[in-house]
Amino acid sequence: MSKSWLAVDWGTTNFRAWLMHDADVVSVINAPCGLLQVENGQFETALQTHIALWIAEYDALPLLMAGMVGSQQGWVNVPYCEGCIDAQQLAQGAHALHTRWGSQGWILPGVAGHSAVGLPEVMRGEEIQLVGLMALAPAENHHAILPGTHSKHATVAHQAIHDFSTFMTGELYQLLMAHSLLGRDLPPQQPDSRAFALGIQHSGLAAPLSQLLFSVRTLRLRGDVPLSGVGDYLSGLLIGQELRQCPSTPHWIIGSDALNARYQQAASQLGLVTEALSGERCFIAGMNQIRLYLQGIE
Amino acid sequence: MSKSWLAVDWGTTNFRAWLMHDADVVSVINAPCGLLQVENGQFETALQTHIALWIAEYDALPLLMAGMVGSQQGWVNVPYCEGCIDAQQLAQGAHALHTRWGSQGWILPGVAGHSAVGLPEVMRGEEIQLVGLMALAPAENHHAILPGTHSKHATVAHQAIHDFSTFMTGELYQLLMAHSLLGRDLPPQQPDSRAFALGIQHSGLAAPLSQLLFSVRTLRLRGDVPLSGVGDYLSGLLIGQELRQCPSTPHWIIGSDALNARYQQAASQLGLVTEALSGERCFIAGMNQIRLYLQGIE
Repeated sequence: MSKSWLAVDWGTTNFRAWLMHDADVVSVINAPCGLLQVENGQFETALQTHIALWIAEYDALPLLMAGMVGSQQGWVNVPYCEGCIDAQQLAQGAHALHTRWGSQGWILPGVAGHSAVGLPEVMRGEEIQLVGLMALAPAENHHAILPGTHSKHATVAHQAIHDFSTFMTGELYQLLMAHSLLGRDLPPQQPDSRAFALGIQHSGLAAPLSQLLFSVRTLRLRGDVPLSGVGDYLSGLLIGQELRQCPSTPHWIIGSDALNARYQQAASQLGLVTEALSGERCFIAGMNQIRLYLQGIE
Repeated sequence: MSKSWLAVDWGTTNFRAWLMHDADVVSVINAPCGLLQVENGQFETALQTHIALWIAEYDALPLLMAGMVGSQQGWVNVPYCEGCIDAQQLAQGAHALHTRWGSQGWILPGVAGHSAVGLPEVMRGEEIQLVGLMALAPAENHHAILPGTHSKHATVAHQAIHDFSTFMTGELYQLLMAHSLLGRDLPPQQPDSRAFALGIQHSGLAAPLSQLLFSVRTLRLRGDVPLSGVGDYLSGLLIGQELRQCPSTPHWIIGSDALNARYQQAASQLGLVTEALSGERCFIAGMNQIRLYLQGIE
């Protein structure tokens, strides 16, 4: 494979591409153009538009893609890999294609597995970050938290993804603030570390989420949480419930700077030891690892 | 008070009024005209329009109103009663008014209290049904479940409302089906008792709701829950988590026939003994009890 290549993270709401030289980032493109913005399955045209400048300058570079672009709603429905998965297996499960401008491309598979409580689980995109974690921090075992719309908690053992769980934390937050009684008639929200801490504290009460959520309403009615801090109280409840599921071993938190900081604050309140890593850095490191196994696959 | 009177249940989305003769229902009016449909605070005009036929025939009858009509967003913001509340205290907390057509009216207060886990709680409307329960089934103690958008669980002891909790079960169901990934691209939903039972079973796994919810997605992807049964699986998860909070004593379930049947099926699967009562019947019985204490309050 040439020393220059492209890494693409193509999700439901965002498109992100990196021009790479070996393991180094040369340039990056961000576009709010996820799968939902692609009409009539015109993925190749959309991609060509997004990276037109790179095609003009570098011609046909090898292209690695991951995320929901490999799902039923994406470019190609690439079957999930199942079991304890590592970089090599992800490479072997990749769907190879050739673009009309002559690039050799691969769409990487997601991973299907089971959570610790035995429910089926799937992910597409986060597995790349986990492979990146294994490369960046070689150790026998890791616990990782990947916060987001659908937060993932994963156990990595012996350089492979073992079990993982999904928490719909981010989506619940958005839904409840935008469409429920809890978010109605609120002023612009402000960071409120007191409200956030109170939410984390209440997340430990012996009550299910559907009950705890009503306290967002009653504490607001009583003035115990200011109107501008309702969002942070709700965030504390949701992130608190999520993190209380973690075993008490050290955890990596792998996401954006803002989410990492929020999760680390919550983890610290719960006595959980964490170290933050950039989600972008892990993604790139993961793609670079997988690239090494793709050399012969066309 | 005259033998004829009116009972009104005026909530956020619905208006319901009963023409009463002593404890008996003579006639009933239903209108999808809750507080949200009343413009510019014109509650008296809206009421006059809804019950125009009764005013024409019976002139100025005494009028008892309960529900969100007594809230900040309602006709008059009637302060909550606090503590262990009975029919007499609700009557004493009523806001008296005279309508322009000469009726003596009362808007009943809601109840503020605390749940068993110590979080503040409020209700407006359900307290009337609980007073009705005390009248219909005299006993020292009751556990009652009032299913709905915001389900209430209440303990009634010595003819007074003791503690109560709210579960946002109905609102979460609506939100998730209408606005989340879980409800996307679904055909019309069908009753599916197998999916409902599976949801109730999974609600007992050692995972918070935000995690269990993702199984709505994965079980659908795997074909373990049919597309037309996704709603019932989600309903099972939510109602199951709610009912698993109940102590193992017998419970009354007080709601509509459809919700009562759904909750009784779930309760039965969880080994919880329940008896169903019509929410409407309890409301009327409660209003009739409170009426007896309103005689001298103008």
